[in-house]
Amino acid sequence: MPDLQAALSYANQHQERFLEEFKDFCAIPSISTLSENAGDVARTAQWLADELARLGLERIQIIPTKLHPVVCGEWMGAPGKPVVLVYGHYDVQPVDPIEEWISPPFDPVVRGDNLYARGASDMKGQIQALLKALEALKQQGAFPVNIRFMLEGEEEMGSPSLEDFVEKHRGLLVCDVVLNCDGGIAGPDTPALTYGLRGLSYFELEVFGPSSDLHSGVFGGAVHNPAQALCELIAGMHGPDGSVNLPGFYDTVRPIEPEERAALAGLPLSDEEWKTLSGVPAPWGEAEYTITERIGARPTLEVNGLVSGFTGEGAKTVLPARAMAKLSMRLVPDQDPFEVEKQLRAYLETHAPNTIRWELRQLSGAGPGMIERDSPYMRAARQALEEVFGIPPKFKREGGSIPVVSLLKERIGADTVLMGFELPDAGFHGPNEKMHLPSFYRLIETYIRFLCIL
Amino acid sequence: MPDLQAALSYANQHQERFLEEFKDFCAIPSISTLSENAGDVARTAQWLADELARLGLERIQIIPTKLHPVVCGEWMGAPGKPVVLVYGHYDVQPVDPIEEWISPPFDPVVRGDNLYARGASDMKGQIQALLKALEALKQQGAFPVNIRFMLEGEEEMGSPSLEDFVEKHRGLLVCDVVLNCDGGIAGPDTPALTYGLRGLSYFELEVFGPSSDLHSGVFGGAVHNPAQALCELIAGMHGPDGSVNLPGFYDTVRPIEPEERAALAGLPLSDEEWKTLSGVPAPWGEAEYTITERIGARPTLEVNGLVSGFTGEGAKTVLPARAMAKLSMRLVPDQDPFEVEKQLRAYLETHAPNTIRWELRQLSGAGPGMIERDSPYMRAARQALEEVFGIPPKFKREGGSIPVVSLLKERIGADTVLMGFELPDAGFHGPNEKMHLPSFYRLIETYIRFLCIL
Repeated sequence: MPDLQAALSYANQHQERFLEEFKDFCAIPSISTLSENAGDVARTAQWLADELARLGLERIQIIPTKLHPVVCGEWMGAPGKPVVLVYGHYDVQPVDPIEEWISPPFDPVVRGDNLYARGASDMKGQIQALLKALEALKQQGAFPVNIRFMLEGEEEMGSPSLEDFVEKHRGLLVCDVVLNCDGGIAGPDTPALTYGLRGLSYFELEVFGPSSDLHSGVFGGAVHNPAQALCELIAGMHGPDGSVNLPGFYDTVRPIEPEERAALAGLPLSDEEWKTLSGVPAPWGEAEYTITERIGARPTLEVNGLVSGFTGEGAKTVLPARAMAKLSMRLVPDQDPFEVEKQLRAYLETHAPNTIRWELRQLSGAGPGMIERDSPYMRAARQALEEVFGIPPKFKREGGSIPVVSLLKERIGADTVLMGFELPDAGFHGPNEKMHLPSFYRLIETYIRFLCIL
Repeated sequence: MPDLQAALSYANQHQERFLEEFKDFCAIPSISTLSENAGDVARTAQWLADELARLGLERIQIIPTKLHPVVCGEWMGAPGKPVVLVYGHYDVQPVDPIEEWISPPFDPVVRGDNLYARGASDMKGQIQALLKALEALKQQGAFPVNIRFMLEGEEEMGSPSLEDFVEKHRGLLVCDVVLNCDGGIAGPDTPALTYGLRGLSYFELEVFGPSSDLHSGVFGGAVHNPAQALCELIAGMHGPDGSVNLPGFYDTVRPIEPEERAALAGLPLSDEEWKTLSGVPAPWGEAEYTITERIGARPTLEVNGLVSGFTGEGAKTVLPARAMAKLSMRLVPDQDPFEVEKQLRAYLETHAPNTIRWELRQLSGAGPGMIERDSPYMRAARQALEEVFGIPPKFKREGGSIPVVSLLKERIGADTVLMGFELPDAGFHGPNEKMHLPSFYRLIETYIRFLCIL
């Protein structure tokens, strides 16, 4: 058993080097959705395999999938202690709108308390904190628990290979608990543990009108403009109360229990706080639910992208031939991502007029997940957080979707502890993503304590 | 007075060379809306000035405006005969979607009966036919009428400098009649004369939500997605019957007179013909009006462009910070393009919720125009068309907008004859624009006859 205080003090002494290595990790543009970055994604996998080797892990493998590889490795030198499977993803989101970045997304820069880079929070910073916690423990002789790794490169594209991978490589993944580092806290001094995750169903909807772009003066008035038709279809997808209008969408939504409402009320978000955090002129959504409930415990439907016709400088009087939207739903227990596809298709079949044609493609789907709040592993996490922050963590539901949680429960039978220090203003998926460095160092400490408590 | 038959036979003998020169004209990418093409626009103005010089015109000038120059010139050697002001525009539309062009847009190519190039029909082919008609007449000694030219380079961007230009240079423009070559016919064997033109009001509407792009999982559910809000606003702009929902939009729309309905009924378009022409699965629009009426005699509101969020390959779960639409209205007598701006603004003020912010910019505005059908000039045009086609032309209203018609009526007091042979399937503003070459040669003949009749 390593000396906890020695490990903590080692971590404290090496903060500067840890930051430099964190920058190296962020400098590789591992954007999984863009085919031109495939080489960078592969390079990041190799970078991680090298890190695992430096930590003395064994059976390190970069296992190819149809798209991007999974990095695995293990250390099983603590017989009688739990096996912890560390899950993370080393791929990142695309960077557009690139013109809104203050510094280049893959040129990591510290400004104030933060490291700015694409992926800094989501989630290279979280993985890096875990690797550095392990390094600090290793310096004291050995890890306090058995460790396995599964680091994937396709999370930001909906993890299309993961289910197949887990099926094929169960032997590498068997564990007592999953430590999923892709988690967040409500603020730098507000520890929290996530016990609920929304699922995701992502679609591309195309509407087709005329066979090619037409002159809006010559044809306008007798052609159903596909951009307009798409807007009409999208506008009908929400009711005036902010609820989603797809047939059957709420049928399997589990109501929020009074006890859960009370727990979620422990993390209140006022309208003013929400306006500051998001920059919107006023909050929106289902009035009968609090903001915290709306973003974590209720399902949503979002337009992620929209394009049609002429979008350049100036005026072009075109009547476009087609219009496209990217749509996604966040799902809560007990919704099913593939049932939702049927609901969307039923909506379109009912509401799309015969003046246009449409095509719907599901790009990914993942079920929502719930985590047992009172497992020994959750209790260990709770204790570690309380030791670091001086106050016990709040329990929360997360708005984002981490399909791997339910997948590993189902296939490996392991519960997950979701613990990472992504902050709400970290700019995930947007410009100027950042990792709050004091939280980064605190996370290293938290992981060290957590692994020692287990 | 030149010999009509000799001029016609000259035009007939030189078709091959005329086509080669037409290709040269189309090869210059005079896209007025793109600043990177400004040099090409200027080169096209010089090309035209050189052509006018070859025809023996005098006082040839390339007159600068704030953006693209106007080419002028005149020949006043026919005292006692009318002064004809030839209007045309030498700029062209952008070429996107470039991937849908079978041959490059500025590499003019003949396939079958057509010359394919951006601007071939709209409207370099029409200008070229007029220049070649003049060349044929000049070979017989002199032009049968006095000729002035005003060729602008900003029509495809809404002619922002034209009003100012006409005001400043009235002296160069005084005339008895305007020959506007930017006209069309219903089919290769269906001569028509346009007497009504729709006006245009063009807008950019931006909707703003959060201050930057957000993670749709973390924020979705309590933020009014600006792409969704834009869709909701656009969806509300039309009623279920295809009518435009802006307050007061139809107040000043002149009803179609029974006599006019009868005349327009002479150019019927069946649902099947419309589907073939436009490629739509079914016609759309105001059911109480025929297709011909909808596209020519009724006002419209079109979405010309739409963009928000992530539109690339794959899935990005972004909640976009903004969404933009390009919107334009085609206007009929007695609508006013600036009143329409107020109507759109009033609609937005009423319907935009406080959960988003919006900005509206008017990019251009031009009033609708009506032309006296029984003027001596229209009678001459009618006779010329009947001589060429063997049948009298139909009278029609044009869906497109040619603001210069009302501008010259107002400022110079001159009526317009709008005569060109753009065909409905010419692909204006879209990919694979073409000019039907038999119509091109017939147009040269028609212009020769028209100028001799005057």
